Amino acid sequence: MSLRLPRLRATLDHQGFDAYLATQRPNQLYLIPAAEPVSALPPVPFILFGAAQPLVFPGPAFYYACRDQLPGCEIVKTEVGDPDVRDQIIAQLARRGVRRLVSDTLPGDLLDRLRAEVPSLELTVDPLWGAKLRRIKELGEIALLRESARISDLGMAAAFAAARPGVSGREIAAAGTAAMLAAGAEEASLQVAVGGATAYMGTGNWVFDPRHVLRPGDLLLVDMALLYHGYLGDQTRTALVGQGTPERRALIDTVQAAYRATRDAMRPGATSADLYAITVDLLAAKGWRQYFPHHISHGLGLGGDLPRVALDADDTLQEGDALSCEPGVYIPGVGGARFENMLVVTATGVEELTHSPADPQTAN
Amino acid sequence: MSLRLPRLRATLDHQGFDAYLATQRPNQLYLIPAAEPVSALPPVPFILFGAAQPLVFPGPAFYYACRDQLPGCEIVKTEVGDPDVRDQIIAQLARRGVRRLVSDTLPGDLLDRLRAEVPSLELTVDPLWGAKLRRIKELGEIALLRESARISDLGMAAAFAAARPGVSGREIAAAGTAAMLAAGAEEASLQVAVGGATAYMGTGNWVFDPRHVLRPGDLLLVDMALLYHGYLGDQTRTALVGQGTPERRALIDTVQAAYRATRDAMRPGATSADLYAITVDLLAAKGWRQYFPHHISHGLGLGGDLPRVALDADDTLQEGDALSCEPGVYIPGVGGARFENMLVVTATGVEELTHSPADPQTAN
Repeated sequence: MSLRLPRLRATLDHQGFDAYLATQRPNQLYLIPAAEPVSALPPVPFILFGAAQPLVFPGPAFYYACRDQLPGCEIVKTEVGDPDVRDQIIAQLARRGVRRLVSDTLPGDLLDRLRAEVPSLELTVDPLWGAKLRRIKELGEIALLRESARISDLGMAAAFAAARPGVSGREIAAAGTAAMLAAGAEEASLQVAVGGATAYMGTGNWVFDPRHVLRPGDLLLVDMALLYHGYLGDQTRTALVGQGTPERRALIDTVQAAYRATRDAMRPGATSADLYAITVDLLAAKGWRQYFPHHISHGLGLGGDLPRVALDADDTLQEGDALSCEPGVYIPGVGGARFENMLVVTATGVEELTHSPADPQTAN
Repeated sequence: MSLRLPRLRATLDHQGFDAYLATQRPNQLYLIPAAEPVSALPPVPFILFGAAQPLVFPGPAFYYACRDQLPGCEIVKTEVGDPDVRDQIIAQLARRGVRRLVSDTLPGDLLDRLRAEVPSLELTVDPLWGAKLRRIKELGEIALLRESARISDLGMAAAFAAARPGVSGREIAAAGTAAMLAAGAEEASLQVAVGGATAYMGTGNWVFDPRHVLRPGDLLLVDMALLYHGYLGDQTRTALVGQGTPERRALIDTVQAAYRATRDAMRPGATSADLYAITVDLLAAKGWRQYFPHHISHGLGLGGDLPRVALDADDTLQEGDALSCEPGVYIPGVGGARFENMLVVTATGVEELTHSPADPQTAN
């Protein structure tokens, strides 16, 4: 952690910036000293990085929390009755002589004020600047991702241990969530789709009706998200409840084949376009191209990470990248399946961090 | 529900708009026909209201879900390979002859494109337009809020039943959350602060360390959020574990007194400035003004509701408003307390929807 601020300083110098104004929490967490547990950083609107100590602008809601709990930071006094945080940012930029500023995002009203009140400021807003800085994972970060993957394995096992005919998606979600919290996750949630609803899991963050109950022959899709020391854990499994139709079994087998083929091509130098084509070609051969609407990979880390593998991505894998691989297919009237593991790119290929069985079994 | 679209049409006509482009989910849920359970509406980026049927732009991820599950809506075909959603919005606005459009929010890139490509469009973006439309609650909505308040009472009772020395905030949160999900909440979460951490609960959505364990004499602050048919349930209680110091007891007593005094002044015509002053004056008399950094009331409904009572609010209560009342005080080195109930404004005052005891007891 202690090397990150000098490295940031070198990056700023190299790119011709004086300072970095971070508003997105993952970008703040990455650079804040000693934020352990990560929940020790209150939700603050702005942190200015570039000087020896990060300069935190908390606002009244969290001024005392920051003052008392963030050693190694300078906390701008923003008690009730003090000038507004935005006024103080503008004043501090002038006082510190910041002329070339980079930011991850800025609220529209602050952007307008900076342009009007500080016309000499050269301002660059780049939503991916923080993600690029955080992209190649340190060994300590990979250790945290390994632990978040282990917790996700425990959650998946607990979810499937609860899954049997007559049980609702909500009960399965509750069992898996409780197991991950008990194993040390700060936050954990499961998205569970049952039966025909699996056909509508275009992405993992929406479930049509968690009250649906499992029946023999149903598809069961379990996705999740957890945080361990701020680091995302994520995996997806799809299974049949007992014996299912060959058509539904083919959904599961095909996404697993797409996963394996795409994973096997991942190595330093592989492009997102090539990787995306491997999954798409395999689905197109089945006539299912139009039933795969989402990305294949997102980065893994504190949030909003690179690299991405998707229709609209233009990226090349590097050693030290951490990412998901999660092909899926969702056919109305039949059902849907997705398979997702967590991976780290090595010098020659990838290492799988996820160790759950590919075909977990429900009770009957 | 069926009267809302004609009422929207009248509002648009009265204000000189042709159509309403809703991007925020609460604004979409309010007007979508037959979205019951509310989770039946997938997360869609844009819905255009104004014609007989809402026009939904799902994008590839949720095209089939919308097509199959939203009767009474027109679904724009956005399968994989179809033109981008933004292109289709621009085309539909032209095809339908929309010249005066109001929206709750628009992504910056669409805003730029509309200005460049449809210069004849008169565009109004008003983040509160949807909240104003949804402000005065119908009887059916108040019934849903009554149920969400009842579930919040059950959650608070379960949280305090689990609270005793040696138990962590996370265990208390798990007990309360499980009780609310079992009682029918679609989503539920508890924020629990223990001991000295209560001093940093400037707002309810952040907890310093959920692993802290209760000890005799500690303050325990339990806040929550749940959804029932999409409607927010919300309450906060603060208690002492066994016997506490008089100073900590005074925190609890003072916020309860501030709650009662502010609640008693709530009626149609009461202004947010007057209501805010009641709490602030009471805290200032104790020398605690600077330890109350947040709002007193937010609206209750599908999300982002009016009215607000806060330092920066300028509002007047109306019959049919639903809102929280939640004064708090948070003193570093001593602790913090907040008290929150759900209320509906009647012709002559308010009705409390929350029925939890003001002083719940922990076990010893």
